[in-house]
Amino acid sequence: MTYRIGILGATGAVGQRLIQLLHDHDNFDIAALTASGESAGETYREAAKWRIDAPIPDSVADIEVRETDPESVPDDVDLIFSSLPSSVGEAVEPAFAEAGYVVSSNSSNGRLDDDVPLVIPEVNADHLDLIETQRENRGWDGALIKNPNCSTITMVPTLKALDDVFEIERVHVSTLQAVSGAGYSGVTSMEIIDNAIPHIGGEEEKMETEARKLLGTLEGTDVEWHPSSVSASCNRIPTIDGHLENVWIETAEDATPEEAEEALRNAEPIDLPSAPDPLIEVFDEPDRPQPRLDRTLGGGMTVAAGGVQSTDAGLQYNCLAHNTIRGAAGASLLNGELLAEKGYL
Amino acid sequence: MTYRIGILGATGAVGQRLIQLLHDHDNFDIAALTASGESAGETYREAAKWRIDAPIPDSVADIEVRETDPESVPDDVDLIFSSLPSSVGEAVEPAFAEAGYVVSSNSSNGRLDDDVPLVIPEVNADHLDLIETQRENRGWDGALIKNPNCSTITMVPTLKALDDVFEIERVHVSTLQAVSGAGYSGVTSMEIIDNAIPHIGGEEEKMETEARKLLGTLEGTDVEWHPSSVSASCNRIPTIDGHLENVWIETAEDATPEEAEEALRNAEPIDLPSAPDPLIEVFDEPDRPQPRLDRTLGGGMTVAAGGVQSTDAGLQYNCLAHNTIRGAAGASLLNGELLAEKGYL
Amino acid sequence: MTYRIGILGATGAVGQRLIQLLHDHDNFDIAALTASGESAGETYREAAKWRIDAPIPDSVADIEVRETDPESVPDDVDLIFSSLPSSVGEAVEPAFAEAGYVVSSNSSNGRLDDDVPLVIPEVNADHLDLIETQRENRGWDGALIKNPNCSTITMVPTLKALDDVFEIERVHVSTLQAVSGAGYSGVTSMEIIDNAIPHIGGEEEKMETEARKLLGTLEGTDVEWHPSSVSASCNRIPTIDGHLENVWIETAEDATPEEAEEALRNAEPIDLPSAPDPLIEVFDEPDRPQPRLDRTLGGGMTVAAGGVQSTDAGLQYNCLAHNTIRGAAGASLLNGELLAEKGYL
Amino acid sequence: MTYRIGILGATGAVGQRLIQLLHDHDNFDIAALTASGESAGETYREAAKWRIDAPIPDSVADIEVRETDPESVPDDVDLIFSSLPSSVGEAVEPAFAEAGYVVSSNSSNGRLDDDVPLVIPEVNADHLDLIETQRENRGWDGALIKNPNCSTITMVPTLKALDDVFEIERVHVSTLQAVSGAGYSGVTSMEIIDNAIPHIGGEEEKMETEARKLLGTLEGTDVEWHPSSVSASCNRIPTIDGHLENVWIETAEDATPEEAEEALRNAEPIDLPSAPDPLIEVFDEPDRPQPRLDRTLGGGMTVAAGGVQSTDAGLQYNCLAHNTIRGAAGASLLNGELLAEKGYL
Repeated sequence: MTYRIGILGATGAVGQRLIQLLHDHDNFDIAALTASGESAGETYREAAKWRIDAPIPDSVADIEVRETDPESVPDDVDLIFSSLPSSVGEAVEPAFAEAGYVVSSNSSNGRLDDDVPLVIPEVNADHLDLIETQRENRGWDGALIKNPNCSTITMVPTLKALDDVFEIERVHVSTLQAVSGAGYSGVTSMEIIDNAIPHIGGEEEKMETEARKLLGTLEGTDVEWHPSSVSASCNRIPTIDGHLENVWIETAEDATPEEAEEALRNAEPIDLPSAPDPLIEVFDEPDRPQPRLDRTLGGGMTVAAGGVQSTDAGLQYNCLAHNTIRGAAGASLLNGELLAEKGYL
Repeated sequence: MTYRIGILGATGAVGQRLIQLLHDHDNFDIAALTASGESAGETYREAAKWRIDAPIPDSVADIEVRETDPESVPDDVDLIFSSLPSSVGEAVEPAFAEAGYVVSSNSSNGRLDDDVPLVIPEVNADHLDLIETQRENRGWDGALIKNPNCSTITMVPTLKALDDVFEIERVHVSTLQAVSGAGYSGVTSMEIIDNAIPHIGGEEEKMETEARKLLGTLEGTDVEWHPSSVSASCNRIPTIDGHLENVWIETAEDATPEEAEEALRNAEPIDLPSAPDPLIEVFDEPDRPQPRLDRTLGGGMTVAAGGVQSTDAGLQYNCLAHNTIRGAAGASLLNGELLAEKGYL
Repeated sequence: MTYRIGILGATGAVGQRLIQLLHDHDNFDIAALTASGESAGETYREAAKWRIDAPIPDSVADIEVRETDPESVPDDVDLIFSSLPSSVGEAVEPAFAEAGYVVSSNSSNGRLDDDVPLVIPEVNADHLDLIETQRENRGWDGALIKNPNCSTITMVPTLKALDDVFEIERVHVSTLQAVSGAGYSGVTSMEIIDNAIPHIGGEEEKMETEARKLLGTLEGTDVEWHPSSVSASCNRIPTIDGHLENVWIETAEDATPEEAEEALRNAEPIDLPSAPDPLIEVFDEPDRPQPRLDRTLGGGMTVAAGGVQSTDAGLQYNCLAHNTIRGAAGASLLNGELLAEKGYL
Repeated sequence: MTYRIGILGATGAVGQRLIQLLHDHDNFDIAALTASGESAGETYREAAKWRIDAPIPDSVADIEVRETDPESVPDDVDLIFSSLPSSVGEAVEPAFAEAGYVVSSNSSNGRLDDDVPLVIPEVNADHLDLIETQRENRGWDGALIKNPNCSTITMVPTLKALDDVFEIERVHVSTLQAVSGAGYSGVTSMEIIDNAIPHIGGEEEKMETEARKLLGTLEGTDVEWHPSSVSASCNRIPTIDGHLENVWIETAEDATPEEAEEALRNAEPIDLPSAPDPLIEVFDEPDRPQPRLDRTLGGGMTVAAGGVQSTDAGLQYNCLAHNTIRGAAGASLLNGELLAEKGYL
C-alpha cells in the first residue's frame, strides 16, 4: 500500500531531513511540498538552501513548491507532515485537519492540548485513540497528531523503560543541544563558536510538560499525566547534530546500575518501517554516547544511553539522539507510519 | 614586602597562566622555574610551547629552567607554586615541604588528606590553621596547601553564599567544561570538534568530595565535612576556556530566586591583591553567563552566575569561571597571597 | 585637544568595537550614537546585543540611541565614524558630509571613487589631500574618507613594506577569514562549524582593486593605481576573529627571505595615539602568526607576518590582522586620528 | 576472485578507515591486522580506539592484532595495505616486499624513489610498470607501491584533467586542511579551536614534488617529472574531514572558465570497484565545494571542484576531497584494486 505525502515547511532544516528520509521510502510518495509565500512557484532546488551532507534527491529537486494552505495541496494527499514555525502551524494545521487531511506535526503549537495526541510510537502509541475525541470536539474529518520537542524525545524512551520497571518519581536533566535544533539560522556562528549558551527559550518547560504527558496514561478520553516531577536545564553547545543529556532519576523501587542497564536494553522496539531495533543502544564505555560518534546509530533513529551509575541522588546516566532525525523529521515520519499501520489514512 | 617565587611544572598550561599572572605582580618575583628533566637547562622560551594569547613576558623568557626537585631550587625562595601531574606532585611536593618550602599547589594529590588545607580564600580561609597540625604530624618546616579542582572552584563560591543564608541539603550539578582543563594535550581535536564527551575521569568524585570539605567546618584540628549530598555529572565541550555549570540546590530554608540572587550578590570578597570584587557577578539575562563572553570578568577571577529560577526540584541556576585562572593558576596564586597575608611566608 | 565623536551604526559588530576602542580614548569623546530606526530612543544597552568579551562601558550604556540622519546628530560633533551596511552608507554618508560633518567610514560604498581618499595611515596618509578635490567636486563642507576592507588591510601594510624595497609586480593571496568579518549574524553556525566556505561575495574584487588604489601614487588630483596585478581567493573558516592570509609576491628586484623579513621589520610606524609600533611583527616560527594567539598583538592593531620563504613562484609568506580592530573599527579610528592630526577637524 | 588482505598499522586513523572500506568489499577479505608491539595479542576492539561514526564491523572486532613484521603475517596474504608512521614504514615495508608481499602503502617514505610507483589510478595507472624495474633493482618477489599525500591527491586529478587539454605551466595552491589528516592525536584541541595554523611540516614540499611525479611521463624505466612549477602554502583549520584547496593555474593554451569546467567534467573515471563516476563533480554554485557538505560525495572517493573563474593570474578554482578516504585509505584501496586488475596479486 502506498500513500501520497505532503510536506508543509519543506525548505527548512527539518523539512530537508524529511525529504532525505522520505525520498526512497517504501510506502510514502512525496506528492506536494509547501513553503512560505515567496518560494511558491519555484522548484524545490531553487527554494531550498539545501544543507544536508548528501545531494538533493533527483526525484524531489524539480517539484514545484506550493503555498502553505489547504487549497494549494491536492485532495488525494493521504498524509501531511508539518514542520512549520509554531506561530504559522497554529493557524495552518487546524485548517488542514478541518479540510480533511491527517497531519503529523513536528511544530510545537498545540502539543499539550487535551485532545491532541502527543506520541512517540515506542512509548505511547495508544494515545492515538485521542483522535476520536479530537474529531468529536472539533468536527474535523482529518486529524492532528504531534511528536514532542527534540530534547524531550531524546530522554523519554529511556525514562519509559526505567519507569516501567522502577517507577520514576523525580527527574533532573541537563542538556547539551546541537545548533541544528534551532533551525538553519537559529544560532549565529558568533554566538556559539568557543562558547555555550545556558538557555533555550521555552525549552525547559517543554521538556517538563511533554515528558509527563508522554508518560501519562490514557484514561477514557483523557491523558492522565505522569505524577513524577521533571526539572530541566537546557544548554546550546557547538555541535551540528545530536542532543546529549545528563539525567538523574529517583525511583520508588531500588535499582542497581546493572538492573537499570538491563531495563534500558529491554525497551520494546516497535514494528514500523523506520523504527530502530534495538530502540535503545546501551554503551558500557563511560564516555559514550557522544554526539559525533553515535548520532547516526540506526540511521539516526536509535536512542543511545550510557554511563549508568548509582549516586547519592539516585541513578545517573546519559542519553543521546539525533535531534533532526529521531528528534524531529524521523519522529514525525514514525508517527505517520503508525497512523498508516493503525488505519487512520 | 616582596617574596621570591618558584614554579614547579612551569611549562604546562597552568604553569603558563601562572607566569602570565605573576610576571608583573607587586609582591611576588619569579625566582625559579622547573619542568620535567628533558627541559632542564633550556631557557623558558625554549622549553615552553607557549599557548597564551599574549607574548611570553620578556622578564621570564630567558630564565633557565631547572629540574623539579628541592636541590635545584634556591633556598631563599619563599613560596612555591606547584602545577604538576598528580603522580609527580605526590612524590615531589612533600619533599619540598620537608625541605622547608611553603607550597601552594594546584595538583590533585593529597587534597582530601585530613591535615592538608584545601582552600578558596573567600570560602574557607580559616582552614589554613590546619598547617599547624600538618607540621606536627609530618615534622615539616614548610607546608603544603591545596586549591580544589577547576570544576569545584566554579561552583563552591556560589554554594557558600547560598548555604550561609539558606542551608544547602542537596546539590545536583552538570558541567560543560573547556578543553584547557585537560592541559595542553589532554583533548585531541578529533575527539571534540562537533562533539561533546559525557565523562571526565575522576572529575565527578572530585566535585562531590572537595565541595563538602571546602564547605566544612574546622573543629579543632579537623575539618568536619559539610553534611549536604553533592551529585555531579561532568562533560567536556568544544570551548577553549571557561567552565559553565548547571546547578540545582535543595535548601532547609525556602529561597525565592530574588533572595538567592541577593545572597549571591552579597558574597563577601576578600582583600587580597588578585581577589575580585564583587566575588560573584550575577546576571539578569537568562542566557548568561556564557564562557566566551564572561570568562574574563575580573581578570578571570570573578565567578559569574545567572538564570536563577525556582523549579519543582529546588533552586536552579548557572555559574561560570575561567578554569585556568580562577580555577587553577589564579586559585594557587590567591592561596599564595593568603599565605603571605597570614604570615606563613 | 578633545573632539566630539558620533558613531553611525553603533550597535553592529564594528560599532561595538568602536565603542570599546573609543570609550577611554584621550582625545575623542563619544557624543552621539545612531542605529536603525527601530532602536532610536532606546538606551545603548537596550539597543545593542553586546557581544564583546568585556562589559559595555558604563559611560556609554545609558546614551540614548538616535536615528541615522544629520538632523538627529548635534552640530558640534567634530567627527563621525560610520559603520553602516553599504546600501545605507551610500545614501547617508554623503548627506552627513554635505551637512558639514567629517566622516571616517568603514562602509564599502564609494571606496573606489576618484575623489574619495581610501587610506591606511601607515601606507598612504598623503592621499588625504584628495579631500580638497572632493570638496570642490561635490560642494561639501564636510568630507568623506574611507578605510579599506578588512581582508585588504591585513595584507597591504606588508605589501607596502615589500614594494618600497623590491617593487611588486604580481600578488596571489588566499585568505582564511573569521566569521566576525560578516557581522554579527552574517554566518550561521550550521554553515561554518566543521566546515569552510570558499567564497565571500565581492571580497576578492575588493582586495584586488583596493590594494592597488592604496599602493597607488597621488599625482595632482588623482591617484594612479599601482601597476601590479593582484589575484585573491577568499575563504571563510570557523574562527571568531583574525584574518589569516597566504601571500605570494613576484618582484622586480630579487629578494631573499632574510631581506624580505628585514623590509617587513623596517615598515615605518606612524605617530598616532592608536597606532602600533612596530607596525609589523615578524615571527621566526614557521607556524605563526595564528589567529587565536596573535590577533591581539598591539591591542589588535599590529599586523603579524611570518613563514617568509623563497619558492619557484616568488616569495611566499603569511600575514594576519584582527579583522574587527585593525581591519575595521581600529582602521576608522586611526583615520580619524590622522584627520585630527592633519587639521581636518 | 577473492584476495586475502593484511593491514599494517590497522588501529590508526587511516587504518580504521581502511577497515570501514574493506569490511564488506566484494573481492578483498581481511585476513590479518597489525599494530605496534604493545597491542599485539589484543583483539582489534581492544587495541583500536575506534573514532569513526559507524560501529566497528563485527567481522573485524574480534580479530587478534599481530606484530608489524613479515613473520607475524600468514604467507597466503595476497595484498598488504600499509598505513604506518613513515619512520616505521621505511624499515618495515621493504621487509614485507622482500618477503614476497605486494604492499600498497599510504606512508610517505619512499614516494619519490625512482623505482617506486606513485599512483592515482585515474591519473597515472601506467606508472605501475615501474614494478618490473623495482623488482630487478631490489631483488624483491613482492612489490611496493605508494599513493600520494592527502593534500596532493585532492588537487592532482583536477590538474591532470586540465593539463591534458590546456598544458599547465604553473600552479599556486593554498590548502585548508582538516585535522584528521594529522592522525588521531596529531592536532590538539587547544591548537585549533577558534584558530588556524599556517604550516604543516613537510606538506608543501610533498605537494610540489609528488604532483610533478604523478603528472610525469613514464619513459622506459623512468618517470620524467612534469615540467610545471608548483608552489603550495598549507594550512590546518578546525574541520574534522575534507581538505579544501584554492588553486591557480597558468596554461600554455588559453582556457575560459567554461572550457575548464568542461575539461574537469570530462575527466576519465576508471573501472575499479571503489572508483567514483564521475571522477570530478563540478559545482556551479560559487560557494561550493564545502568540506562538511561535499566530502562524502561518491562515498568519499569523488573529487569536487567549483568556483572556476578567470583572473589576471590565470584560471582560479577550488577543489575538495575527503582526506582520509580519497586522500588516504581509499587511495591505497584503489591502488590495491588496480594491482589486482593488472594481475600483480
